[in-house]
Amino acid sequence: MKLIHGGDVVGYREEYGREPLDFSANCNPLGMPPGVKAAAAAALEEAHRYPDPLCRQLRAAIAQEEGLPPQWILCGNGAADLIFRLVLALRPRRALLVAPAFAEYEQALATIDCLVVFHDLREEEEFRLTDAILPQITPETDLLFLCTPNNPTGWAIPRELLLRIARRCRETGTVLALDECFCSLLDEPEAFTMTGFLEEFPNLIILKAFTKLYAMAGLRLGYCLCREEGLLEKMAACAQPWSVSNVAQAAGIAALQEQAYREQTKTLIHSQREFLRRELTALGVQVIGSQANYLFIRTDLPCLGQRLKERGILLRSCANYRGLDERYYRLAVRLPEENACLLQEMRGLVAAGKGTP
Amino acid sequence: MKLIHGGDVVGYREEYGREPLDFSANCNPLGMPPGVKAAAAAALEEAHRYPDPLCRQLRAAIAQEEGLPPQWILCGNGAADLIFRLVLALRPRRALLVAPAFAEYEQALATIDCLVVFHDLREEEEFRLTDAILPQITPETDLLFLCTPNNPTGWAIPRELLLRIARRCRETGTVLALDECFCSLLDEPEAFTMTGFLEEFPNLIILKAFTKLYAMAGLRLGYCLCREEGLLEKMAACAQPWSVSNVAQAAGIAALQEQAYREQTKTLIHSQREFLRRELTALGVQVIGSQANYLFIRTDLPCLGQRLKERGILLRSCANYRGLDERYYRLAVRLPEENACLLQEMRGLVAAGKGTP
Repeated sequence: MKLIHGGDVVGYREEYGREPLDFSANCNPLGMPPGVKAAAAAALEEAHRYPDPLCRQLRAAIAQEEGLPPQWILCGNGAADLIFRLVLALRPRRALLVAPAFAEYEQALATIDCLVVFHDLREEEEFRLTDAILPQITPETDLLFLCTPNNPTGWAIPRELLLRIARRCRETGTVLALDECFCSLLDEPEAFTMTGFLEEFPNLIILKAFTKLYAMAGLRLGYCLCREEGLLEKMAACAQPWSVSNVAQAAGIAALQEQAYREQTKTLIHSQREFLRRELTALGVQVIGSQANYLFIRTDLPCLGQRLKERGILLRSCANYRGLDERYYRLAVRLPEENACLLQEMRGLVAAGKGTP
Repeated sequence: MKLIHGGDVVGYREEYGREPLDFSANCNPLGMPPGVKAAAAAALEEAHRYPDPLCRQLRAAIAQEEGLPPQWILCGNGAADLIFRLVLALRPRRALLVAPAFAEYEQALATIDCLVVFHDLREEEEFRLTDAILPQITPETDLLFLCTPNNPTGWAIPRELLLRIARRCRETGTVLALDECFCSLLDEPEAFTMTGFLEEFPNLIILKAFTKLYAMAGLRLGYCLCREEGLLEKMAACAQPWSVSNVAQAAGIAALQEQAYREQTKTLIHSQREFLRRELTALGVQVIGSQANYLFIRTDLPCLGQRLKERGILLRSCANYRGLDERYYRLAVRLPEENACLLQEMRGLVAAGKGTP
């Protein structure tokens, strides 16, 4: 298996024999809330049993949080699990993806016989999604994956545009899979989430994760929302019944209680993201989009990723994103002292002849 | 999603408002070893990070335990995850299953377009696998699932027969998927496991679980062994990269150290299984097969499962196994006092007019 994502801390340790400062994965820098950790630890006392295949308590808790019926919810072993299951359940003959975007949509579609068509975002438009995508949504398009905010650009899709896309998809019989995994890390999630439109759009399925917001990527927990219960049933049948561990279920229930942590996160992410944006821009780095808990940058500093790696800092190179190259990087918003450390190293590289050896 | 397996403790709690004594799931009655629990708890400190997609440390530990190269190992979110991935990776057009057997082989095959052929085990032969299966393995058979010891019968497949089947599969170009998830709970696993024959049979893939032996079903961890690394690569590509949580990886590494626990388990399972066999037989219950940590029984006591459920005890009804009906049950070997409790309730039912109300 080739590692195509960020977050390879194990590999770093093996190569360098020390801990990196990891800006390459986008989890909440506050770490897992103590209440979530305690719930996960308590769940170990029940881990000799099979987990509940129906995730009954967790789904009830999510239903309350989202204000939606539990039958509209399917939980998975991380949101990535649900991407694969959706593809297996739908078996689209033709799918439309945006480029650049999260690689797992394409990876999942590669497991079935499907023609994948790309809508290329344009650098001239700062890689924003525009209504230029509308004509590409045709009756032949069985499935469209969109990500808001997009990964790696961090652009959230304006509500108005998303509604036009959802309507178009409804007309063409296209399932709109909307990945909102980072949505709760925007300044104003409520202005962008489409959960309030599920009733109106039976062709809409929304993917959400606990991973990023609650910094519990290691435990694996995601869910999807859709009013077409038949589709969720099919997705459930496309994998084993026990895909969500009992630890993840317990952690998820506890996470939904963490109101203060969510507020604290919002304040921290906003201020540190804007701090990083200013400082990086001052260094001559171009910051694009970046409305969530990560920044998407373009730089001409040669080998920036490798040079920072040698200094103990991991960025996510975007060279393997379709439509991008080695000038682009994605970096997580972390704690103030960590962000300062990153900036200090980058200043050093810029000073040392713009990074040339 | 319909619950077709045992172990529905959550459902029992909801219906009866109390804890059941669960004989319907087959995990080690000693519970998760403290060392494993401690390792899982420690891993929560790292759970803010994505788990290692390659499970590098865990695979190195399994490789050492099995005496096989790490490249021959793929880890999954429980062995059931790997059943689905194998089916997705191979896409067999025709598969051969034994009936009765674990339901997930058929469930997984139902997700693809595959003709499933059954080899029916015969009650006259106590549901043993015999060489009568050999003629059913033809060049058209792309995949054969076998389970040793079989679930629910508990019969292990004799080495001699298994070698004949493996040779036949090699001749016909059939992949032999051998589920050894309960093998380590036999009295003599080494007499039955085929791990020593992987080198000889590139068409052999062996499934193994941590779930049952180490009572860590809630954490989800299984693996498979195969010398055809290309097949493992394909299986890896059929699902998200992060399917094994960091907690499961840490727990697995710790579990492999539990030599004393494994010995204790062996002694306990052997003595309690044989105790249950004698006592159940004395009650007029027919015990079939049952060489592992569970007993497969046939009884004419009407509604045995429901009546025990009302008394707080869960058995696994085998009514939804292909080829069986409501007279058949599977029950786990548990701790001496728990087994005594089961027997006491059953004696009560037998005494009360053979269970008729």
